[in-house]
Amino acid sequence: MASDEQQIRELIAKWMAATKTGDVATVLSLMTDDVVFLVVGQPPFGKEKFAELMKSPPGAPRPQIDGRSEIQEIQVLGDYAFVWTRLNVEMTPPGGQTVKRSGHTLSVLRRTDGQWRLARDANLLTTVS
Amino acid sequence: MASDEQQIRELIAKWMAATKTGDVATVLSLMTDDVVFLVVGQPPFGKEKFAELMKSPPGAPRPQIDGRSEIQEIQVLGDYAFVWTRLNVEMTPPGGQTVKRSGHTLSVLRRTDGQWRLARDANLLTTVS
Repeated sequence: MASDEQQIRELIAKWMAATKTGDVATVLSLMTDDVVFLVVGQPPFGKEKFAELMKSPPGAPRPQIDGRSEIQEIQVLGDYAFVWTRLNVEMTPPGGQTVKRSGHTLSVLRRTDGQWRLARDANLLTTVS
Repeated sequence: MASDEQQIRELIAKWMAATKTGDVATVLSLMTDDVVFLVVGQPPFGKEKFAELMKSPPGAPRPQIDGRSEIQEIQVLGDYAFVWTRLNVEMTPPGGQTVKRSGHTLSVLRRTDGQWRLARDANLLTTVS
């Protein structure tokens, strides 16, 4: 049985891999139903909006997304945990130029049905030139 | 005895009031020694840097800072808690124009020596025009 910290590291690795392959269903399974995403300059949003943002229109080529997460801290508090990461993401739209975004995240995770899931996420990434 | 949630609300109110009056010592007493501040476009920083940023040069007039925090969620987890707020800050440098900043924060608080203190803080505020 993996430790909570190990399970949380695996959750993040799974999230990054599923984002890369565009596996929306898997990414959605890694967050709670009441998840809240906090980003700069936009109102908070939840699971439904996240799914919309991640899905490409039918038949459209997917952007290429490559992320690298460096975990700075994991603190487990019973069925909750908080995680601080440094995150780099390279996003290349079909036929377009790669946009690099870099920064930190502070997240609250919750264990539901025995599985760790993202519950609150503050994403401080900005475009790097 | 106030509930944990009430104590955390009082901590935030005290923080906002001390920021307004420029009471650096009080604000510093409301954070843990190992506090980490995460902001957009800058490396993470701690208590010492926070104190530097808050202190005006000796004899210099202080900027006027007026903040309003709307608590969206408080979740207490033993000696830890996380807090999500919506924050509006108006900062007016001496003789200058008021700059309005608005956005959300996600913070981790820790109880040390019986007092709740800020331990990790992700600040997503951006300038509002």
